[in-house]
Amino acid sequence: MRNTFIDNISLEETKPLFFNRIEKYSKKEIISTEKSLGRITSSSVFANVSSLNFNASAMDGILVKSKDTEMASETNPIILKKEKDFIYVNTGNPIKTKFDAVIMIEEVVEMQNGDVRIIKSAYPYQHIRNVGEDIIKNDMILPSFHEIRPEDIGALFAGGIFEIEVIKKPKVAIIPTGSEIVEDYKNLKVGDIIDSNSRMFEAMITVSGGEPHRYSPIRDEKELLKKNILDAVKKNDVVIINAGSSAGTHDYTKSLIEELGEVIIHGIAIKPGKPTILGFIKGKPVIGIPGYPVSAYFVYQQFVKSLLEKMLCKEDEKENIVKARLSKRVYSSLKHKEFIRMTLGYVGGELVATPLDRGAGASMSLVKADGILVISKNNEGHDIGEEVEIELLKSLSTIKKSIVVIGSNDPIMDRISDSIKLSLSHVGSFGGVLALKKNETTIAPIHILDSKSGDYNIDVLNKYFPSGDVVLIKGIKREQGLIIPKGNPKN
Amino acid sequence: MRNTFIDNISLEETKPLFFNRIEKYSKKEIISTEKSLGRITSSSVFANVSSLNFNASAMDGILVKSKDTEMASETNPIILKKEKDFIYVNTGNPIKTKFDAVIMIEEVVEMQNGDVRIIKSAYPYQHIRNVGEDIIKNDMILPSFHEIRPEDIGALFAGGIFEIEVIKKPKVAIIPTGSEIVEDYKNLKVGDIIDSNSRMFEAMITVSGGEPHRYSPIRDEKELLKKNILDAVKKNDVVIINAGSSAGTHDYTKSLIEELGEVIIHGIAIKPGKPTILGFIKGKPVIGIPGYPVSAYFVYQQFVKSLLEKMLCKEDEKENIVKARLSKRVYSSLKHKEFIRMTLGYVGGELVATPLDRGAGASMSLVKADGILVISKNNEGHDIGEEVEIELLKSLSTIKKSIVVIGSNDPIMDRISDSIKLSLSHVGSFGGVLALKKNETTIAPIHILDSKSGDYNIDVLNKYFPSGDVVLIKGIKREQGLIIPKGNPKN
Repeated sequence: MRNTFIDNISLEETKPLFFNRIEKYSKKEIISTEKSLGRITSSSVFANVSSLNFNASAMDGILVKSKDTEMASETNPIILKKEKDFIYVNTGNPIKTKFDAVIMIEEVVEMQNGDVRIIKSAYPYQHIRNVGEDIIKNDMILPSFHEIRPEDIGALFAGGIFEIEVIKKPKVAIIPTGSEIVEDYKNLKVGDIIDSNSRMFEAMITVSGGEPHRYSPIRDEKELLKKNILDAVKKNDVVIINAGSSAGTHDYTKSLIEELGEVIIHGIAIKPGKPTILGFIKGKPVIGIPGYPVSAYFVYQQFVKSLLEKMLCKEDEKENIVKARLSKRVYSSLKHKEFIRMTLGYVGGELVATPLDRGAGASMSLVKADGILVISKNNEGHDIGEEVEIELLKSLSTIKKSIVVIGSNDPIMDRISDSIKLSLSHVGSFGGVLALKKNETTIAPIHILDSKSGDYNIDVLNKYFPSGDVVLIKGIKREQGLIIPKGNPKN
Repeated sequence: MRNTFIDNISLEETKPLFFNRIEKYSKKEIISTEKSLGRITSSSVFANVSSLNFNASAMDGILVKSKDTEMASETNPIILKKEKDFIYVNTGNPIKTKFDAVIMIEEVVEMQNGDVRIIKSAYPYQHIRNVGEDIIKNDMILPSFHEIRPEDIGALFAGGIFEIEVIKKPKVAIIPTGSEIVEDYKNLKVGDIIDSNSRMFEAMITVSGGEPHRYSPIRDEKELLKKNILDAVKKNDVVIINAGSSAGTHDYTKSLIEELGEVIIHGIAIKPGKPTILGFIKGKPVIGIPGYPVSAYFVYQQFVKSLLEKMLCKEDEKENIVKARLSKRVYSSLKHKEFIRMTLGYVGGELVATPLDRGAGASMSLVKADGILVISKNNEGHDIGEEVEIELLKSLSTIKKSIVVIGSNDPIMDRISDSIKLSLSHVGSFGGVLALKKNETTIAPIHILDSKSGDYNIDVLNKYFPSGDVVLIKGIKREQGLIIPKGNPKN
């Protein structure tokens, strides 16, 4: 039983087919305001009390009757008598009824006998905060479907809201499948794969505002998987099934979703992530996600994250796009929209982007990536030196601290990368030499033997950098060498 | 006892005086990897196991001996016998020893008797994932002082790391002071102020990666405050004292920090936030923050957030700056660097920025603000229509959904703002008319009586929009009117 047919529908066509059927999530709960950070209001919130609930001084100074001060000027200073004409107030103190204005302490000249002299009149209600200045009872503090931030919590407390109704977190089941996938990492056998994707999903769902419910890995047995899918659909709002989403003999995900509900899409023209399944069982979205870590990551980002955001009426996170110059040619097939993980670094003030390993299995490339280069379906790729747009995964300030290293794979760079962030690209020694000549790297590790002299790296240095504008740092091992530009580093 | 002297040192001069004395935080703890989201590694993390720990098929297809396929071509198809020459494999299956290549199922023609026909040769190790393809044992997975993301958790599990050493969360004491500040909101009396700042700080500290420890409000008694500051310094890594930071008779914060430790700065040329105190007690940073909610917010952002980021070696959050046109003149004093809360909205495709209420007490303005306009110390402000840079507090996609409303303060707009995000600016009816004429608003609420006709709004409409390119929507109350442009809305 092999499903030989997989679609190849574009991402742009796929999204409305799935997302148009997703509705606002409407389950609610009441929680205490102090625990509401990051939660989403279910309806508008109106103030229970006014803040302030009294007139207060807005300054440190003296409380006066504005009438007494009307004639004050530099040429006509006025003396005010302590207690009778003024009293000292601090910021926040209530206004005593016979007074109606505050003069800042900086504008008051204090005299020996305790009286004060002023040279400027005060207008009525000068520097006085009024009842309800901040919040008026019954004013709206927050609208519905608003994600609560620290400043919102401040305003809620100020408005006397100590409990708040919020949208429940949608429950998302994670069902890992595959007889080779194991949860118990203590007795790992050859052929076992630790279930790492589910752990990544748990954290991603938490970040997206959902409540993850992870199942233990399910062996490749159709009835067992069916039982677990039914259980997950019953107890959760969304179900993700990890792997078994392709067309292999043990890929039951598609046929089970079809049997229990409806498959909308099987196969999307994205790379990584092609064998994705989108469907519904009993009205609940069920997503079959491919097993490779990188595919799992991108399919989550494209579908589960957007799904939870749509359910919770959350905005798309702002994409942060920068322009960078490619240090290496990047090919792509015309068949897919491709997401390529890139490292970034500044060389001579210019941002340089280098593709990381593209194997979909390489979860380390997700850890190392600084950004994503998206190549659309009808594009063959980009040439070296071309300017491309990169969607940032790390902040530019982090990337600014990173040093670009292009050349041979020298283990010393791994050691250095613990204390200094490096943007590493392994293109071989000569690739490094060329990158340095073109001002596309700050360090080029090289291991080049000169067959005549029997020495390493020096001949190539003399040949390619005859003007002597670079320095060779020799490693402890005789073959190791790093070339760097002379003088101040350029970034 | 009044401290009459407050400095007015610029923000730029202040920061190094304080931050140069802050060191990396070094307390550590071991936690389970699944709970490590958002935590910070204390040292580099190296893989315990390789992933994969075996050679595996990278595709669904058939497992073959590459040698058998060498001669295959379209003109010379080769037949492979089931079990003998090939076996079916699914993605992730281990490679059986006698085989060395995988042919994708799509490239295989299955025959009736179970054999297959191929028309393309397979090279050795084609579509085979190698041991350690993803992670090699002892490879570095994460560097030190790295903030753990979902994809990092995936890689840690894949590398067999189930417990991880992280930096402890720095403990931050929050001491609210002021006899008028109350924690018990159930028996609120006139003159009481609910302690809302501490609740905002708790959430802000959580977001910054610290562990907040909130004290109950302390009455304005010097010895009581002293006892609590000493307790807080003993049990925490950072202490913030909220209010009492100015120079009033009950402002003990400065004199107590001076008595128990050292005051570095008292008074910074920022607005809001001038009466800020930066100091140290027993080597621990102690920050006196003014009591107005908006001042409290900005001083936290400028000092406590940066302090925790520095302790945790976190990057500054990326600032998101956009350009916008001012719909209203904005003045500033030359004495301070000023932070002005703005609402933003698109009118005719252009971003329009309107200042919100500038009272430092208005915590609602923090909730409503879409961005911040920073006016430097030596700048008097900006004119209406001028292009300015705004630091975003909300995403542009949220702002795009917002409709700009400039004009009279009509209660119906508050009602509407629950379901549609509005960027509201109250400038009076005629201000609204002018803004609409200058294409700076999408809706102008007006309440203008014509003394001759005794009717509302119609005369002004005919006078200012004689070409009839706008529509007047009349409210239920006869004075209410909204003017909007005819035809499709422009954004």
